Amino acid sequence: MSNTVVVYHSGYGHTQRMAEAIAEGAGGALYPIDSDGNLSDDGWAALDAADAIIFGSPTYMGGPSWQFKKFADTSSKAWFTNKWQDKVFGGFTNSASLNGDKLNTLEYFVLLAGQHGGLWVSLGIKPANVKASKRDDANRMGSYIAPMAQSDADAVPSEMSAGDLETARLYGTRVAGIAQRFSLAQIA
Amino acid sequence: MSNTVVVYHSGYGHTQRMAEAIAEGAGGALYPIDSDGNLSDDGWAALDAADAIIFGSPTYMGGPSWQFKKFADTSSKAWFTNKWQDKVFGGFTNSASLNGDKLNTLEYFVLLAGQHGGLWVSLGIKPANVKASKRDDANRMGSYIAPMAQSDADAVPSEMSAGDLETARLYGTRVAGIAQRFSLAQIA
Amino acid sequence: MSNTVVVYHSGYGHTQRMAEAIAEGAGGALYPIDSDGNLSDDGWAALDAADAIIFGSPTYMGGPSWQFKKFADTSSKAWFTNKWQDKVFGGFTNSASLNGDKLNTLEYFVLLAGQHGGLWVSLGIKPANVKASKRDDANRMGSYIAPMAQSDADAVPSEMSAGDLETARLYGTRVAGIAQRFSLAQIA
Amino acid sequence: MSNTVVVYHSGYGHTQRMAEAIAEGAGGALYPIDSDGNLSDDGWAALDAADAIIFGSPTYMGGPSWQFKKFADTSSKAWFTNKWQDKVFGGFTNSASLNGDKLNTLEYFVLLAGQHGGLWVSLGIKPANVKASKRDDANRMGSYIAPMAQSDADAVPSEMSAGDLETARLYGTRVAGIAQRFSLAQIA
Repeated sequence: MSNTVVVYHSGYGHTQRMAEAIAEGAGGALYPIDSDGNLSDDGWAALDAADAIIFGSPTYMGGPSWQFKKFADTSSKAWFTNKWQDKVFGGFTNSASLNGDKLNTLEYFVLLAGQHGGLWVSLGIKPANVKASKRDDANRMGSYIAPMAQSDADAVPSEMSAGDLETARLYGTRVAGIAQRFSLAQIA
Repeated sequence: MSNTVVVYHSGYGHTQRMAEAIAEGAGGALYPIDSDGNLSDDGWAALDAADAIIFGSPTYMGGPSWQFKKFADTSSKAWFTNKWQDKVFGGFTNSASLNGDKLNTLEYFVLLAGQHGGLWVSLGIKPANVKASKRDDANRMGSYIAPMAQSDADAVPSEMSAGDLETARLYGTRVAGIAQRFSLAQIA
Repeated sequence: MSNTVVVYHSGYGHTQRMAEAIAEGAGGALYPIDSDGNLSDDGWAALDAADAIIFGSPTYMGGPSWQFKKFADTSSKAWFTNKWQDKVFGGFTNSASLNGDKLNTLEYFVLLAGQHGGLWVSLGIKPANVKASKRDDANRMGSYIAPMAQSDADAVPSEMSAGDLETARLYGTRVAGIAQRFSLAQIA
Repeated sequence: MSNTVVVYHSGYGHTQRMAEAIAEGAGGALYPIDSDGNLSDDGWAALDAADAIIFGSPTYMGGPSWQFKKFADTSSKAWFTNKWQDKVFGGFTNSASLNGDKLNTLEYFVLLAGQHGGLWVSLGIKPANVKASKRDDANRMGSYIAPMAQSDADAVPSEMSAGDLETARLYGTRVAGIAQRFSLAQIA
C-alpha cells in the first residue's frame, strides 16, 4: 500500500470530518495543524516519508486559513532541500458558501505542490449538475481539481452533506491508488 | 446617468438572461458576441464610449468561452492605445455546476480589466449561506468579486434561479452607480 | 486629499521599501503587520477610517505570508459589519524570482477586497517589454492588476530595482487619486 | 517509452519553438492548433491515444489565446466520455512581459487537466534567482507549476532565451518520464 498523509487545519470541525473521510478512503494517517499554525515533529517526519501528501484547510476570507499558510511557509525548509520533490499531492476545502472562493484555496494547494516539485491528482468524479441531482450525490459541488464541501454557517459538523463526505472518501482512495502505482513503478 | 455597456457571449440562452438582468439593473446597453466570437462595429464603438464595461460569458471547460476570449484578444487594439484606461469594469458568468470553476472565469475578467488599466467593482452582497437560505435568495451562490449563476445542465433558461437573476440585476445597478460617482467627480 | 492606508507585512525589508514608496506616492500612512501577524489597534482604526486600503506582502511559498493571512482572517470582524464596503483597494508584492507565483498573491488581494465589497485599482502602466527595456524602467515586471517587485534572493533591500520602486510610487499616487475622485463624488 | 503529445497554438513562432524544445525532451509528437482554433483529426486521435498531453499557448490579454480555448472547448467531447481520465498532463506558455499574467495561463491548463480527470506534472526545477543568475539559466523565470518563456515584444523567435528553451526541454523529459513510470505500473 502507498503511504498517504493528510495534513490539515480545521477551525470548527467541518474540515476535520472531511479530513477523516479522506484518510479513511486513503488508508492514510491524519496530522492536524494546531490553532497556532504548528505541526508536530511526528507530522513533519510523516510528510517527509509519505508517498502522497493531501493538504486540507477551510476557506477563510477567500483562501486557506492563516494556520495552514504558516504550515506552508514553514515547509520552505523541505523546499530548500527538495525533500518533497516528485511526491503525489492532493487537497480539499470546506466553507459556508456554495462558492465562497473555495476554488482559490484549491488552486493555492496546487501552487504549493508545484513549489515542492510534486504531481497533482484531480478529483476525477463527474459533477452532479442536473435537475435530479441531490445534496447527497458525489461531487454535487461540481469541483474538478480537488474536492470541496459546503456546510451552512449555522450547521454543526454532524450536519455535513453525505455527498461531500463520500466525495472526500473517494478522493482519498484515488490519491492513494495513484501514489501506489507510482511507487510500484519506482521499485520495478 | 452613467453609460454602462454589457458585452457578453451566450451559448444556450442562460448567460443571455443574466446579461438582460444586469442591463436592466444598470439601465445599460447589451452587445452580444456572436457564435464566431465577433462583435459588431457598433459594439466596439459603444465600449469605447462607455463609462462602465461589464463582461459576461458562460464557463466552459473551466474558463470563459472561446468566443469571449476571441473578443478579449481583439480588444488588444484598444489596449495598445489605452482606450479603456480608468473605465469601471465588472463581469458575470453562468454554468451548470455549483462551482464548475466559475471563479476562474470571473478572475479572468478581473485580469482583462487590469490589462486595460481599469477599476473592478465587486458584488457587494453578503452570501446567503445559512440553513434557512433558499435558491431564490440574492447571492445564494456565495460569490464575491462578481455575480455567478448556476443552471442545471438539463434546465432551459426560463428555469433559472430567481435569486441568481436578482443578484445580477442588483450588480448592474451597483456598477452603474459607481461609474456615475466616478463620472461626476471627473466633471467636478 | 484622500485618506490612503498601506497595511503590509515585510519579512526582510524589501516589501517594507516597496510599502514606503507606495505611501510616499499616495501621501498615505503606513501600518505594519508584525512578525506574529498582528496589527496595532491604531492600524485597525486607520483602516476603518480610510478611503483607500493598499495590501502588501512578500510572496512566500506561492502566496501572501502567513502573517498577512492572519491579518486577513482577522479582518472578518470588519467583514461581518460591512465596515470596508465600497472602499477603494490596491495591493503589491515582492519576491526573489521573476515570477515566483507573485500573480497569485495579487489575485488573493483582489479576492480579499472582493470579500469586503470593495473596488480594485489596477496598475495602469504599460509594461516595459522590448529589447531596449531596462531594469529601472517602470513596470519592467509586466504586471497588470497591481505592482510587483523582484529582489534577488541574495540582495539586500538597498539593492532593489529603482524601476520597481518607481512603479510602486506611481501606483500609490494612482490609488490615492482614484479614491479622491470617489470621495469628492460622495460629497457632491 | 511513454507516448507524449504536445498540442499547442503559436501566433508568431515563439511558442512554436518552445513546443519543439518540449517535444524534443519528451521524445514526443507535435500537433499544432491552427489560426482558426482547429486541430486535425490526426491530432485528436493522437491525444486520445497519448499517455501524456502537454498544452501550449502564448499568453494573450491575460490568458491562453482564443485559438487554444476553442480547442479546449472542443475537448468537451472527450470530457463527456472520460476519454482523457487519468492521463498525465503538463503545459507551457510564452509572452512578451516578464510576468504578463502568464501564471494565469498555466493555472488554466491545470484547471483544464482537472476537468479531464488528469494528473498534473510541475516543473521541478529550482528558480535561478540570485545576483549571479543569467538569462540563459534554467528556470530563470522562477516558475513552478510549469515552464514559462519570455520573449521581448520586438524579438523574433531565433532570439529567445536559451535558458527558457532548455527549461522547456527538461520539462518535456520530466513529463514523459513520469508518464512512463505510470504506464509501467499499469501493466505490472
